[in-house]
Formats: sequence, C-alpha cells, structure tokens
Amino acid sequence: MIKSKAYAAQSPTSRLSPFELNRRSPGPDDVQIEILYCGVCHSDLHTVRGEWHNTLYPSVPGHEIVGRVVAVGDKVHHFKVGDLAGVGCMIDSCGHCQSCDEGEEQYCENGFTGTYNGPVFGGENTYGGYSQTIVVRESFVLHIRHAEKDLASVAPLLCAGITTYSPLKHWGAGPGKKVGVVGLGGLGHMGVKIAHAMGAHVVLFTTSASKIEDGKRLGADEVCVSTDPEQMASYANQIDFILNTVAASHNLDAYLQLLKLNGTMTLVGAPAEPHPSPAVFNLIFRRRQLAGSLIGGIRETQEMLDFCAQHQLVSDIETIPIDYINTAYERMLKSDVKYRFVIDMASLT
Amino acid sequence: MIKSKAYAAQSPTSRLSPFELNRRSPGPDDVQIEILYCGVCHSDLHTVRGEWHNTLYPSVPGHEIVGRVVAVGDKVHHFKVGDLAGVGCMIDSCGHCQSCDEGEEQYCENGFTGTYNGPVFGGENTYGGYSQTIVVRESFVLHIRHAEKDLASVAPLLCAGITTYSPLKHWGAGPGKKVGVVGLGGLGHMGVKIAHAMGAHVVLFTTSASKIEDGKRLGADEVCVSTDPEQMASYANQIDFILNTVAASHNLDAYLQLLKLNGTMTLVGAPAEPHPSPAVFNLIFRRRQLAGSLIGGIRETQEMLDFCAQHQLVSDIETIPIDYINTAYERMLKSDVKYRFVIDMASLT
Repeated sequence: MIKSKAYAAQSPTSRLSPFELNRRSPGPDDVQIEILYCGVCHSDLHTVRGEWHNTLYPSVPGHEIVGRVVAVGDKVHHFKVGDLAGVGCMIDSCGHCQSCDEGEEQYCENGFTGTYNGPVFGGENTYGGYSQTIVVRESFVLHIRHAEKDLASVAPLLCAGITTYSPLKHWGAGPGKKVGVVGLGGLGHMGVKIAHAMGAHVVLFTTSASKIEDGKRLGADEVCVSTDPEQMASYANQIDFILNTVAASHNLDAYLQLLKLNGTMTLVGAPAEPHPSPAVFNLIFRRRQLAGSLIGGIRETQEMLDFCAQHQLVSDIETIPIDYINTAYERMLKSDVKYRFVIDMASLT
Repeated sequence: MIKSKAYAAQSPTSRLSPFELNRRSPGPDDVQIEILYCGVCHSDLHTVRGEWHNTLYPSVPGHEIVGRVVAVGDKVHHFKVGDLAGVGCMIDSCGHCQSCDEGEEQYCENGFTGTYNGPVFGGENTYGGYSQTIVVRESFVLHIRHAEKDLASVAPLLCAGITTYSPLKHWGAGPGKKVGVVGLGGLGHMGVKIAHAMGAHVVLFTTSASKIEDGKRLGADEVCVSTDPEQMASYANQIDFILNTVAASHNLDAYLQLLKLNGTMTLVGAPAEPHPSPAVFNLIFRRRQLAGSLIGGIRETQEMLDFCAQHQLVSDIETIPIDYINTAYERMLKSDVKYRFVIDMASLT
C-alpha cells in the first residue's frame, strides 16, 4: 500500500481537513501518478456537502487531476515514468456493455466507477484528487500534450473541458452553426473557448453585463445579457444549438424559444431544485429538443485534450493552496472565481 | 360566394349548432371539395371550448377532411372534378421562408394558416371541415389513393396519421428499432399501426389492461400496462424512440427512464396543465432527448397517405351524424371511442 496525504470531509457539515489514505500498489495494468494540480469542480462541493444524497464519507473529492507518472505496471505500454498524465471523472467501468464497447464509458450500463465517491450505482468508496498520489488502470489515464508550464491550467479540461467538448461535438458545433452558451462559469468559459475553436459563431448568454468584455475575450462573437428581454427576443429562432451550463434552477423556455427548427438545448448541470417545467408548445412548434449530456468517454477525453493542445486552449484559473479550499468553496457559491480554482498540490505537505 | 351549411360554436360555453358560412368562389389556383367525411380531433374540442385561449368565434372546427373535387381553377393541374381529395390542418403558409422552402409548412416562420381558427400567429378566422364544402389552394390539397369504400376511415389520417407518421419517420422508426407508443387513443392507435408498418418492434404503453388485446390487434408486438411498476421497470433503458401521444399532464420521467442511450421521447400532445418537470438526471445520464413534433408538411402528408394506401392502413372509426357531435365530445373526454369519431357529412342537410 502507498500512503498519501489528502483533504477529506467527514460529514455533510464538516469542513475539508487533512486526511491520510492508502492507494493500492500499482498492479500490472496500473499507472501511479504524483498529483501536481487538481481543479475544483462544483460537483466536488455538491458531493462533500451531500447535496445529491449519495455521498460516501470520508469524502475526498477532485476529478480534474494532472501530474507526473511515477510508476507503471508490467503490462502498461503507453505511459512511462516521467510522463505527464491526467485523470478525469472516471477510473473504471464494466468494459463489456455496449456503451463501453463504443468508448462511451460515461454511459456504462453497469455504472462507471467515479474517481471519487465510488461506482455511480453504489459500491466501495473511492478517493479523488485532493491528494498526493493516485493509482489508476492505464486505460483510464490520459496523455497531456500541452506545454508543462500550462499544467495547472490544463487540469480543469479533465471535467469542465470534456463536459462541454462532448456535447458541442455530438450536436455538430462548427462553421456555419450559431451556438449559444448559457452561463460563464467553470463550464461556460470552456464552452465558449471550445465552440469558438470548433469554428462556430458563439453567442454567450449571461445574467451579468459585467461579463460582456470577458466573454468576448474568451471567444464569444456576441454576448446577450439574459436579463434584458429585448436582447433575448432578438435571438428568437436564431440558434442551432445551446449548451446550457447553469446548474441552478431557471426558466428553460427563455432559451428554448431561441432555438431554430430542429434545434437542441443540452443541459450539462443538474440543479438541486428542478427547473420549472418547460412549455410543450415550445418543443412542438419547432420540433425542438431538450437534452442532457454527461462528461465524455475516455477516447473522446483524449481527443479533447489533443484538440485543446493543438488550439492552445486551457482554462482561466486561480491557483490556490489546499488549505484555502473551504474559502474557495464559499467563493464558488458567490461565482467569485475566474473561472476555476486549481489546487497546487505542492501545498499538501 | 358559395353558401355552405356547417356546425359552429358561438362561444367557449355554447354547444355546436347549425351555422351557415360563405366560401370564396374558386380562384385560378383553387380546388373546391364537397366534404364527404370529417374526422373529430381532440384539437377541435380544445378550440371550440377556448382551452388554448386563442379561439376565434364562431368556431367551425374540423381538419381531417376528405371528399370529392367539384370545381377547379384554370391553373389547377393535379386535380380534376370527380377526384377524391383531402385537406388536413393547414390551408396556407407564407411560401417563402426556409421551412416552407423545405416543404415543412407546419413550421412556417411566418405562421401557417390553420384550416380552422385562422393563421397561428393571429388573423382573420377560417372555417374547417364541419361543413359541406371547402375551397383550398391546390398546393394544400392531398390526393387520396385508398379505395373509395374506405374513405371515412381515411379522414383521420389527415391529422392523427401525419402527426404520428412524421415523428416516427424523423426519428428513424424501422426494422431493428424498438419503438414505444404511449397512449391508445386517436393518435396512439395510428402510431401503433404506422410504426408496425414501418417495421419497428412496437411496445404500446397504456394505463388500461383492457386495451392489451386491441393493442396487439392494431400491431403492437408487446403491451405494457403503465400502471404496473414491475412491467415498466422491465423496459428500463430498452427503447430507442418513444412517441408520446398523451395530452394530459403526466409523469414524463416514467417514460424517459425507458429510453436507451441517445434515445428520444417526442411529445405530440399539448396538455392544458404543464407536465411535472422532468428530472435532469434522466436526460444527462443517458444523453436522452425530450422533443416535440407538430403534424407534418404537405409533401410528407401525401407521402403518409400513399404509405397508408400501400399498406392498407386506415383509422379505426365510429361514424356519426353531425347532430351527434356534442355527445361525441362528451364521450371523447371519457376516452369512450375506438378510436376516432368521423362525421358523415351526408347528415348535414
């Protein structure tokens, strides 16, 4: 066994605090990674605080992991000691269902194993990236081809990047398409960057007029302040695809109305309280679709990382020491971060 | 002007009663049809009673019209006196938007003109098929290629037929696909017949165990009684596409859970009260889609009529005289019809 320092929450109401955990010694198919940086996802906060009513404690969150390979098993062929490597939201899946066969392990019919909080359908707890080291089967480890100096900013791609890349790709964002991105947070700012890099015409929808300039800097061709009914009305029936990154309950109809015939709005956030029920007429009268999308498969995550390396895309981040994490959570709840906290794991001593 | 006897409602609370209206004399592009039969759609009832808050009175409903051509204009090339002909839910559209260009006049960006109740975005009233004759531009008139003896049973295809055919085609119902149809009423019974004829494996979902045999007779391979949680659970993640024909507010999640990865459930009914809000997790965890669909374009309506003629598909109907219409509405509200009332217009004297 390998001892690793970590930060954990012991209950829904306790703060994250120092913890020690054990990692298995690498087996023949395993890669051991020294964690250098770990992004802070809103899911971490939901899980730690038990907001999805499925948290296993102690809870060690973190699924935006980047670091350096420090050991590999005998049968590992694609990683060697010293390589940069990443781990995202999954560390295992059944490997034999149709979704796994198609490389979409996130939709594993038997439930993938989360990097933290164990298998999605229940089982033994797993400990995530707020820790010094992690041991993961090679097939769930990603190659990092960005420059090493960008490593901290690469970390959020492992969740925020793939969660936006996958639906943008699936629903055909690209040249000639007008793509809306709702919300400019950790997910939304990556959605804007990636949709822009894919060649789409990007319209950012934000409640905050103060984000107009930043939206354009990040790659939005237009920014619509969604609290202004006139601005919203001017986009009616104009958008091919909307990536909705807002996890708080809100009026979906305001955005469904902006879709063209056959347009789709895809939700990537899950609100604690349900959204108001969307109006059926808004779906029927233009054959619109309301969809959901969950992260992406391992093959697609590698594709996303390579796409981002090629286009020199990284996340806009604020690097923090791990003992700042509880304060960081409070700031996230106020959207006071541009646009992702990333823990420098050198601070975990 | 051509005088025509009809039945109309004068207000949301008045019964349908005899009325006389004028039709224009056929212009060069017009076809005049002697109406022989008119199907009774649930939309007729919603409109007459003002349940969608947009009814123009007097209201003469009816958009499942079949009859015989009795006059044609100089420039009419595809119909001649004596032909059988049909008219569905639309009698005009702008003709120059992208939807019209693509033959999807039902999604006309400027709003199609309904066969009754006028243009969808507001305008002068139009009078539907509960009448002796109608004059319609040739481009909105359909050819009927069924045997003349089946004419009454063909009438419901003009709305119930195309409303189910169009989404089944759009979302790829066919061999190798497992298609669910929710509800066995006017729309649902056509959905079952058409999906079966398209070669799909059809699962009918009905609240009523008494409909099992009828469902199978109509073409369902399996019937699931949706009030039985065990039966419902056995279809979890099994269905490629669900055509949901139920217009009453109900729990959409019960059906969304039955969809496979990338599956779509399409609503073709608009409830007066909203459905409970669907759970976002049900969309996200299998990249499912909730969609809506509205009737179909004129070209596709002709394709549907020809498909039904080729496969000898018609509606299961109960023929009624027009003075029975108010009683028929009461029976429709109790689902006491198998599966569509059709008015024999010879009774309108």
